[in-house]
Amino acid sequence: MEFQLNRNHAKPLYLQLSDQLQERIRSGSLPAGAKLPPVRDLATNLGLTRLTVHNAYSELQAGGWVEAYVGRGTFVAQRTQPTLQSLHVPARSHETSMPWISQGMLADMMRLSQDPNLISFAQAGPAAETFPVRDLGRAIQHALRDPAALGYGPTQGELPLREAVATWLLDRNVVTSPDNVLITSGAQQAVALVLRAFVRQGDVVLVEEPTYLGFIEQATALGVRLIGVPMDEQGMRIDALRHVLREYKPRLLYTVPTYHNPTGICLAPERQTALLQLAREHSLTILEDDVYGPLGYDGTPPLPLKSRDTEGRVIHLGSFSKILTPGLRLGYLVAQEEQLGPLLAAKRSADLHCSPLLQRALADYLGRGQLAGHLRLVRELYRERRDAMKKALQRSCPRDVQWSTPTGGLCFWLALPPGINGADVYSEAIERGVGITLGSVFFPQPPRSAYIRLCFAAQTPAAIERGVSILGDLLTDHLRRHSQLAARACRETEPLM
Amino acid sequence: MEFQLNRNHAKPLYLQLSDQLQERIRSGSLPAGAKLPPVRDLATNLGLTRLTVHNAYSELQAGGWVEAYVGRGTFVAQRTQPTLQSLHVPARSHETSMPWISQGMLADMMRLSQDPNLISFAQAGPAAETFPVRDLGRAIQHALRDPAALGYGPTQGELPLREAVATWLLDRNVVTSPDNVLITSGAQQAVALVLRAFVRQGDVVLVEEPTYLGFIEQATALGVRLIGVPMDEQGMRIDALRHVLREYKPRLLYTVPTYHNPTGICLAPERQTALLQLAREHSLTILEDDVYGPLGYDGTPPLPLKSRDTEGRVIHLGSFSKILTPGLRLGYLVAQEEQLGPLLAAKRSADLHCSPLLQRALADYLGRGQLAGHLRLVRELYRERRDAMKKALQRSCPRDVQWSTPTGGLCFWLALPPGINGADVYSEAIERGVGITLGSVFFPQPPRSAYIRLCFAAQTPAAIERGVSILGDLLTDHLRRHSQLAARACRETEPLM
Repeated sequence: MEFQLNRNHAKPLYLQLSDQLQERIRSGSLPAGAKLPPVRDLATNLGLTRLTVHNAYSELQAGGWVEAYVGRGTFVAQRTQPTLQSLHVPARSHETSMPWISQGMLADMMRLSQDPNLISFAQAGPAAETFPVRDLGRAIQHALRDPAALGYGPTQGELPLREAVATWLLDRNVVTSPDNVLITSGAQQAVALVLRAFVRQGDVVLVEEPTYLGFIEQATALGVRLIGVPMDEQGMRIDALRHVLREYKPRLLYTVPTYHNPTGICLAPERQTALLQLAREHSLTILEDDVYGPLGYDGTPPLPLKSRDTEGRVIHLGSFSKILTPGLRLGYLVAQEEQLGPLLAAKRSADLHCSPLLQRALADYLGRGQLAGHLRLVRELYRERRDAMKKALQRSCPRDVQWSTPTGGLCFWLALPPGINGADVYSEAIERGVGITLGSVFFPQPPRSAYIRLCFAAQTPAAIERGVSILGDLLTDHLRRHSQLAARACRETEPLM
Repeated sequence: MEFQLNRNHAKPLYLQLSDQLQERIRSGSLPAGAKLPPVRDLATNLGLTRLTVHNAYSELQAGGWVEAYVGRGTFVAQRTQPTLQSLHVPARSHETSMPWISQGMLADMMRLSQDPNLISFAQAGPAAETFPVRDLGRAIQHALRDPAALGYGPTQGELPLREAVATWLLDRNVVTSPDNVLITSGAQQAVALVLRAFVRQGDVVLVEEPTYLGFIEQATALGVRLIGVPMDEQGMRIDALRHVLREYKPRLLYTVPTYHNPTGICLAPERQTALLQLAREHSLTILEDDVYGPLGYDGTPPLPLKSRDTEGRVIHLGSFSKILTPGLRLGYLVAQEEQLGPLLAAKRSADLHCSPLLQRALADYLGRGQLAGHLRLVRELYRERRDAMKKALQRSCPRDVQWSTPTGGLCFWLALPPGINGADVYSEAIERGVGITLGSVFFPQPPRSAYIRLCFAAQTPAAIERGVSILGDLLTDHLRRHSQLAARACRETEPLM
């Protein structure tokens, strides 16, 4: 088989390869049942690494184009619709059930963020230059004075860290006890544990639409039925929520009420009240994701739902990944005593417990009160970068693109006008050296419009200006092409006389 | 309600409380539907912490004695058989589906290991005094020179660590590429990812009987049908395996072929060959757990199955928890290219990735070749302790108890004679200051005999001698009581004339 592979192309080689294979399957030149060459052979023939070919095949497999059988090889699927397939050892069917998103694109996101040649706005991460390397290094050395820091530890987490978290939560008006805190491997694991502990296949779970990608992935992997509640500039729409509560019997509602990812929106205070009231009426448990809560740039951030939860309906989660460093992989859940049993069982099953060394080091760091100073510093830095992105968007972004300035968190959310293809914008942006996140990954169902998310915290104001300007040109080009096409379509349908 | 609670009793307060509540439910003095006092109230009335009361209620809930409804309270279950129940937000039904084991006992195990007043043989962990605190501290400081160590990293793991793992595996005759290595949060997560990626609810999975508790917990949580293959002193019985392969269509076989946990047995070489041959014939995927493999004390350890796997049927897992320190929470999977896609998706869903800081530090440590020296040291130390336990058992253990000396790994496995109740031995051992693990936790189905596991690596020879002597006395007492009872039963059924 021959392929057109271009190493200098921004599209990764494995995607070039999988696209061309897909084309042949579509066209029938590779019919159902045909065997693809072994990874090793194709890699040798094309001068690629085996991993590249493997990734291309995985991509095809995720899309349902091929089926792989361990020991036999990879075959063109009988049904070449992007549906689910069985391997010899099959992937769980729902693991790949977001057919409107290229799985390769998802896997790209993190990789893109680490490409030094890109100005990447892709990942909602903090700025590496703010990491308190010296303070954390010292805290780790302190923790190492007790060799038990390198041993097994309690599943719920090290007590000093749970105490520090309970103290730190007072800043967000959440009054809890260390007994109610469970230390997790970041917010992603916190979400995974709550789903694992309380939700079964087929249960309905409500989310904001759009919502955090990591929640969608986990929930679909579990075979959960995700229902999106639309948002407006005040957050989740309560009228729509009321409707879906009547319609479905949801098990859980997952929400990012403060500096929502990806939109940056905060849930209005009167909606907070209405949401808690509805939760009471419908015996609904709420999972509140507050990982961005402390990152407010204009005035005091809204208080979390958990601070007004008098009935234990809210499981609260937070993380040190966005406000301090992701590399410790430490976050937390705050739950009622009644909820802790299943959560602890899920944590023990997942990975026994988090590293006692890193937990004790973080407890030491927090115990010295160093987080408050760090937060002042990063808030100031990110405010500057937020402002830089705002200015750059005002200058470069075509008028037809909608966006507003977030008052906190890490991202801008752009709604593209009809006719613009988000995936094209995504791949062309990478070609021009700018990494972005395609908005569709944040939707539990394929969205009607195209969106992109731009994260500003990890880039300098100069890079933000350059990147947004490139992106603005690209969007302008797209709009011009679209309106020319529209005009031509219009002319072509004009009556000849 | 009044309770007899004894703070000086070895049985934890929460178990005392839950046992007494259970007794009242059994006797009908707490009828079905009765509401238990709120945790807060009962805690205040009894002068207990809320966590203690909560744990007691969880215990009852896990056993199906009560049902809890968030916001309403805890009620005596309608069916008070130890079956599964629904919470307002229910635990997954299979999360608590080992009814022959007290869930509280499981949760105790790790806690016991950390009680300084106990001589604990409970946990299969390494000796804290061997942890290379200074070397790892230095490696962490090196890693911190690059702030990216505190940022997000690749889901598959840091490349330098994957390279170091591939190099280190050559010592076990496993030839692989860093591309085939996935870094996990210990062996527990490796197991979780394989199950998550390749096994669905209702699938049959084969295990040795007994087997690693963490595998049973994970698999039952997923609703997997676990079939145990009996063992003899040569490891898994191939005749029995042949039988279950014909009977069921297993998705996966999980095995600890070298220094098996909990029995310490190695799979005989000719059985390795037969197992791989059967895997070929039945298209079976094998998950090989090699976490104890490097810990051989008598001669060269057997090679792993993976070293003879020419067909990619074996997914291999290892960990640094047993051979170095558990506190890094780092282990690995070695899988075929075709298997990595679903495994990476599962890892990303679970927790994105492991701490880049700890991964880079471990890569630095391994890169300096420090593990080989460390292993020489711990092998020597653990051999001494193994020998100390052997001698102590020879001296103190009643003749009716069966055991043999493990040639590697971290534990002895004792089969108790008929009539001895394992749970009684377990709680009386704790009363007398010795922590052990009850053998039944390692069985996917309730075992016919009683067993206990004794781990020796974390105790000094003197403590081993003392602990085993206490345990020997206890077992002797039990046997004497049992034979008296048996004799009495015999007398009582004797004809009067």
